[in-house]
Amino acid sequence: MTAPAPMAASVQVLAFDIFGTVVDWHGSIQREVQALYPAVDGDAFARAWRAGYKPAMARVMSGELGWTLIDDLHRMILDQILPDFGLDHLGEAERRHLNRVWHRLDAWPDSVQGLTRLKRRYTICTLSNGNIGLLTHMAKRAGLPWDCVLSAEVFRAYKPAPETYLGVARVFDLAPAQVMLVAAHHDDLAGARACGLRTAYIERPLEFGAGHPKDVAPRQGNDLHCSSIGQLADVLGC
Amino acid sequence: MTAPAPMAASVQVLAFDIFGTVVDWHGSIQREVQALYPAVDGDAFARAWRAGYKPAMARVMSGELGWTLIDDLHRMILDQILPDFGLDHLGEAERRHLNRVWHRLDAWPDSVQGLTRLKRRYTICTLSNGNIGLLTHMAKRAGLPWDCVLSAEVFRAYKPAPETYLGVARVFDLAPAQVMLVAAHHDDLAGARACGLRTAYIERPLEFGAGHPKDVAPRQGNDLHCSSIGQLADVLGC
Repeated sequence: MTAPAPMAASVQVLAFDIFGTVVDWHGSIQREVQALYPAVDGDAFARAWRAGYKPAMARVMSGELGWTLIDDLHRMILDQILPDFGLDHLGEAERRHLNRVWHRLDAWPDSVQGLTRLKRRYTICTLSNGNIGLLTHMAKRAGLPWDCVLSAEVFRAYKPAPETYLGVARVFDLAPAQVMLVAAHHDDLAGARACGLRTAYIERPLEFGAGHPKDVAPRQGNDLHCSSIGQLADVLGC
Repeated sequence: MTAPAPMAASVQVLAFDIFGTVVDWHGSIQREVQALYPAVDGDAFARAWRAGYKPAMARVMSGELGWTLIDDLHRMILDQILPDFGLDHLGEAERRHLNRVWHRLDAWPDSVQGLTRLKRRYTICTLSNGNIGLLTHMAKRAGLPWDCVLSAEVFRAYKPAPETYLGVARVFDLAPAQVMLVAAHHDDLAGARACGLRTAYIERPLEFGAGHPKDVAPRQGNDLHCSSIGQLADVLGC
């Protein structure tokens, strides 16, 4: 797949979704949970934790909860699911350590090299619902070479709220069409598209683990559809 | 100068002032203005532009102006001073280009290497009144290896407002004493100290140009006093 030349020329900023797109949350959490607590089903644990994520953000966006960082939402969900996995005996220090696993997620194998190539020509930033501290720690550990860490925390709204996508354009004093959102999730891309951003879908068929393959067939509407961040760099000529 | 071992161990984040501390705004603007408009006194121009900076921020913090990015404050000041330098004939495109010189400031010679060393042990971030886009463009051009770009824009307050210094600690879920502000300006360091941050002064005697040397003698109150960011890396054992 090749990019129409005018598009590649006009886009200046690539904003990346993180959880699932750049890093493997499922595999990372599964591995860490199984290493710490061998009796626990790490696959089910990772999926249960992640399943609480959108409902928790919805409580914030509806006003039921005040503005809350993802670190704190992750902790609320963790406290809820621990009894289901026989881990309700964990103390404060263990819970705090486990909650920080979201700062220690491993990148997909193509991410660091792909981002490094894209960074030569584009400004590359995060646009994640994860908080700034989480994203910074993750980048430092995994070697993700962001030019800038942008987050729901900066805009005080979670994706897919328009403030987040338009916020990236505003930060860089660009028109929305000069920003491209790169994500493995169609709802995120649809939100960006509705704001006038360009969009690139990245296939991550194993986002939910090998036992739960995801449909990554192309859908209409996105400017690009790539198998990896490396292929995105190919398509954009980086 | 050596750092007390307990301090070096407890500090986790180094937050850097930018204009004057990491980059040479005076020399960069002087060079660019003189290259573009040889008849203009680049030294006086750079100092006049910078002199409008604190009064402009004070108008925002007093509420006289709504929240305004530094790019826009720089432009307001630029429009005010152009007639004083015989440049009131400049058109919109030329003014816009000139205003972006703040995105193109050169680093002091020790900055990139010093930051690269410090980054091995610490999380290094900006804490500047400059806006995120400006700081990101500057870092990309000058090779400044930030882990994270923090700005007044994130906290919607200009230094020395406490929200900025305490904001860094909050972003990283740290106590204020685990964050060190690194700056070449005593008022900035005093603001950080009042919030409980650690402080390091960096000598930049030529911040205002060779014709206007700055007193960089040590003053009481700062944890560290260094001749350069490289010396800071030495002192902190990086």
